[in-house]
Order: sequence, then structure tokens, then C-alpha cells
Amino acid sequence: MNTEAKQKALTLVEQNPLVMTLGTVDPSGMPEIKAMVKMRNDGLRRFWFCSNTSARRTGVLRGDARACLYAYEFAADASPMVCRGVMLSGLAELSWDDDLRRSFWQDFMSMYYPQGPLDPDFVVVQFTAERGNYYEGLQNKDFSI
Amino acid sequence: MNTEAKQKALTLVEQNPLVMTLGTVDPSGMPEIKAMVKMRNDGLRRFWFCSNTSARRTGVLRGDARACLYAYEFAADASPMVCRGVMLSGLAELSWDDDLRRSFWQDFMSMYYPQGPLDPDFVVVQFTAERGNYYEGLQNKDFSI
Repeated sequence: MNTEAKQKALTLVEQNPLVMTLGTVDPSGMPEIKAMVKMRNDGLRRFWFCSNTSARRTGVLRGDARACLYAYEFAADASPMVCRGVMLSGLAELSWDDDLRRSFWQDFMSMYYPQGPLDPDFVVVQFTAERGNYYEGLQNKDFSI
Repeated sequence: MNTEAKQKALTLVEQNPLVMTLGTVDPSGMPEIKAMVKMRNDGLRRFWFCSNTSARRTGVLRGDARACLYAYEFAADASPMVCRGVMLSGLAELSWDDDLRRSFWQDFMSMYYPQGPLDPDFVVVQFTAERGNYYEGLQNKDFSI
């Protein structure tokens, strides 16, 4: 357990509250990345994102739930230079539970799901982290969650 | 071939000239993401990044060169809302060629490689894209490169 790295990782994750990038592996074994709109998080342990049932990434997650979440901050012109990032590794599972979808609904989502929170194309991606890695400069720390 | 999507993808890649995120797959099959400092690109076809020989990601790429590069822009408060991204899929290969490393050297890199351009810990990651995907709003286009 590395308490200081976990605290810094959480601070970084919460700095950019709306979007994180999700890494997955397609059926041929190729890595994929996509920005996801975050709806809520429970510390570093669990994150909820909205996605589309029809999206290619949803099909990839049905086949292989292994995923990572990543957030970073980089500023070469800061003094001292800022270079930090957090990667969380775990599983990303899909849910169409009506109560869950209603609980996460926000107005701006109607751009994506015209039928509202129960739109069949609205799917919740629930990511559960098992372990993480935080780096800052050249320091690199693993932690369990 | 989708010329318009490729042009928009290139514009997006060149908006953020310094950093892109690289997706890889570790030996156990887990996806990984890391921000990489971009040194140069040749359109959408080829990208060069600096990395550390000692870095875990370098070891991962020795075992499996399959990789993706990703860049995105998201602004929920813009009107209309901005939501676009580009993912390039291909291979990320490692090089310690002295001329290549000298040609990419920039002063700020001395933070990472105190011995300069021929520091044994300085490795060039050369990413070559085979295909790409560009999305904007709900539109999604594949293209070959």
C-alpha cells in the first residue's frame, strides 16, 4: 500500500472531473483508447461513464472487460516542469439497469440519447480498479486498491 | 479512403503538438495507456516520441509492438458542445540510433536524460500508423493510412 501515491492519484483524477481516457483490447489483441464522459466516481475504486450501446467500444467490452483508466497533467512551460499521470487497471462492465441510468442522467446527455435516461442506446460503463500506478517526474509508484 | 476525416484528424493531432497518449498491451493481455512527449510527426503516418530505456513501457513494447495513439478535444460548455477524437492504430518500435537520437534532442529533455542525446536511457519510440478512426459528435469514420 502506498498511501501518498494514492492520495496524489486521487487529486489528479478529480482535477479533470468530466473526461478520462479508457484503454481496452479489441478481439484481435490491438489496444484501443477512447475518451469517456465520467458521471461519478467513488474514490479510485469505482468509476461510472456513459456510453452508447451501439458503439464499437461497447461490443469490445462485451468480449473482454479488461480495461485501464488514465489521467495526466503535462506542462513543459511550468517551472518546475509538470509531468504526472495515473493509470488504474481493472474491469469495465456494462449495465442497462433503469435505476442506475436514471440516477446518472444529466441534461447535456440528451445530445447523445434523445429518448432520455431509458434510451436503449444509453449504457452505463462501470469501471472497478484493482491496482494503480502514479508517476510524477521520474518517480513511479504502484499501489493496490 | 476518407479524405475529409483524415484532414480533420490531422488538424486535431497538430492542435496539441507536445503530448499524445499511447495505448499498449502488457504481457498478461491488459491494456495500458501513457502520455508520451512527441518530438516530430510526418502527417498521420509516423510519429516519434522520447522514452526511457528503463521504463516499464519500453519493456512492454519489446514484447508486443502493437499500439495506438489517441488525441481528443472535449468541451461540454462550448456551444455547440465540442466532442472529437482521433485514434491511430499501428506499431510502435524502439530505436537507439545515435543520429536519430541527436536529431530529436531538445534542451528540456536533459531533465530526463542527464547524459544528453546519447544517454543510454534515451530511447526513441517510432510509431507507424496503419489505419485510423475519427469521430466528431456521433459521427465516426474509419480511414486507412
